[in-house]
Amino acid sequence: MADLPLPPGSTVGILGGGQLGRMLSQAASRLGFDVVILDPEDNSPAGRVSRGQIVAAYDDPTALEVMGRVCDVVTFEFENVPAASVERLAEGGALVAPGPTALAAAQDRVQEKTFLNAVGAPTVDFVAVDSLEDLNAGLERLGAPALLKTRRDGYDGKGQVWVRSARMAADAWEAIGARPAILEARAAFVRELSIIAARGWDGQIAVYPLGENKHSGGVLRTTVAPAVVDMKTQRRARAIAAAVLEGLDYVGVIGVELFDLGDGVLLVNEIAPRVHNTGHWTQDGCACDQFEQHIRAVVGWPLGPTRAHARIEMTNLLGDDVDQWVKLSGKTDIRIHLYGKAEARPGRKMGHVNRVKPL
Amino acid sequence: MADLPLPPGSTVGILGGGQLGRMLSQAASRLGFDVVILDPEDNSPAGRVSRGQIVAAYDDPTALEVMGRVCDVVTFEFENVPAASVERLAEGGALVAPGPTALAAAQDRVQEKTFLNAVGAPTVDFVAVDSLEDLNAGLERLGAPALLKTRRDGYDGKGQVWVRSARMAADAWEAIGARPAILEARAAFVRELSIIAARGWDGQIAVYPLGENKHSGGVLRTTVAPAVVDMKTQRRARAIAAAVLEGLDYVGVIGVELFDLGDGVLLVNEIAPRVHNTGHWTQDGCACDQFEQHIRAVVGWPLGPTRAHARIEMTNLLGDDVDQWVKLSGKTDIRIHLYGKAEARPGRKMGHVNRVKPL
Repeated sequence: MADLPLPPGSTVGILGGGQLGRMLSQAASRLGFDVVILDPEDNSPAGRVSRGQIVAAYDDPTALEVMGRVCDVVTFEFENVPAASVERLAEGGALVAPGPTALAAAQDRVQEKTFLNAVGAPTVDFVAVDSLEDLNAGLERLGAPALLKTRRDGYDGKGQVWVRSARMAADAWEAIGARPAILEARAAFVRELSIIAARGWDGQIAVYPLGENKHSGGVLRTTVAPAVVDMKTQRRARAIAAAVLEGLDYVGVIGVELFDLGDGVLLVNEIAPRVHNTGHWTQDGCACDQFEQHIRAVVGWPLGPTRAHARIEMTNLLGDDVDQWVKLSGKTDIRIHLYGKAEARPGRKMGHVNRVKPL
Repeated sequence: MADLPLPPGSTVGILGGGQLGRMLSQAASRLGFDVVILDPEDNSPAGRVSRGQIVAAYDDPTALEVMGRVCDVVTFEFENVPAASVERLAEGGALVAPGPTALAAAQDRVQEKTFLNAVGAPTVDFVAVDSLEDLNAGLERLGAPALLKTRRDGYDGKGQVWVRSARMAADAWEAIGARPAILEARAAFVRELSIIAARGWDGQIAVYPLGENKHSGGVLRTTVAPAVVDMKTQRRARAIAAAVLEGLDYVGVIGVELFDLGDGVLLVNEIAPRVHNTGHWTQDGCACDQFEQHIRAVVGWPLGPTRAHARIEMTNLLGDDVDQWVKLSGKTDIRIHLYGKAEARPGRKMGHVNRVKPL
């Protein structure tokens, strides 16, 4: 296994060739690293800006063996990497970060909330649901409306449904495919915040200022950061981020979504063991953005500064929003980040813009 | 020929796969463009972060025909592209920027200074030297010491020699290979400045703040920008940059090196029709750096903002300077930019660092 810190010229492997992999790759190459992507889709957004791409499934044994051999460290842009893949990479000789504990916690919503509560990061009340009977019992306990989500594999509002009354239980159970699920109590939040944080192999922690997020249809539309928050909220969020990072013995950048209940009371909505859409503002608001920060963490370099030098309003370009590029390219206060995706399917994340304002 | 502005998803070709091509490629991909590099060296620094690289000589007819066909616009990272290559690219169907006029002016030091003086951008006195007799006559006219440079192909202090007295003339003439040359009077400058500017297809001009440069052995060591200058000097530099851009009907970013004689008097030392080492500070000092600015110009997008939000001290990492990466990676006020070059030959540009200070 490679000695840390990894020198420039080492190879960083990334599982996943989407926009997060692309921006990670660009950050890694700025620091002098070569990057190899593993993604089943040829010519992926990340593959197009990297030294190489292996085109194969994430659980392809040969591909993983090769990744393990050519890469000094392997990381990922999404959390649904099979645990067996991570083991195989490690057998191939590569460091893998974040590690299996973080992946396991992020892949199962019941495990995730159980872990969070155990480390002192409060969440909404929840019950595990393995049957319609469990769901009815859960509704009894938590009250309606409550949110029913599959335990695994959901993202951007997929695999989840609001259960507005006990009478809707059977329909809701069918709607998510009658699969192992979690029922979550509704949070009476005043706004949604998130915090991006990083931890190195040596335990060093770096935390960015909070962002305030607006979702629509379960998909993030905008983040404004640094969010306007009182000191108590800022301190509480940092404490939660640190508890999560330490609890997972985490290496890399993590995104922690929070419900702000007011008066400095925060609940964790979910954690994402990777760079996060709500951290894209750091590209134009901070000297060291979340992508460089993640690379620094996984290659064993000291973490970079997290202070904001501007206030950023990040807006996702979904589907044909990207057709606005002519208008957007003419605004001097807007920085454009496009992902090189050919097909603008409805709702697909095609890029984002950061509007730069003084602090 | 493609309509402007080019939409994201278009392909930008770059002649030259060194560090300037690499940083241009990274900027282009941030804006959603695909990039193809032409460079005779396989796995070039730029090729490693681009969609593709054609490995061939810059005057290879087939390679140029392919570049012209697959690229919507072609640009270059160095000025010694053969004029015939530019013609062949245009025949292949691609736009080429900057155009042949700028290349011709930059490839011959006598033509360059003649052009500069013609557009009202003053230089030191000079004489064209085609023989030892010309050299002796030139020394008579300009006095010694004077600087003898080959007319073509010199950079970073190569192909030039100081002639300290008339007795040295013969040796100097041999030292530069008895080739067509220029003899330049010595400038009594107090410091070296440079200005990075851009012009679009529509004639729009954008100019960055001045940088102050320190060279050593003919090679740039540091740039501090924005330089501390009075309004008169700043205005004069901007006027010179605009005159040069307009005189060349230029499209893209240009670097203009200046001698500051004091009292707002500036002479142009040389122009580089490309992104420039003295503009690397813009990566961490401006929202839109010189690389994005160049891409914006050549693809026909509006130029980006040039205001500085920090004062930057840029230092080149030459040869084994790059071995300092461990120390440098731990400084929170330093941003590291490495070029992915494997072999740290003495004096080779391996990377640079930007030290970020408040304005």
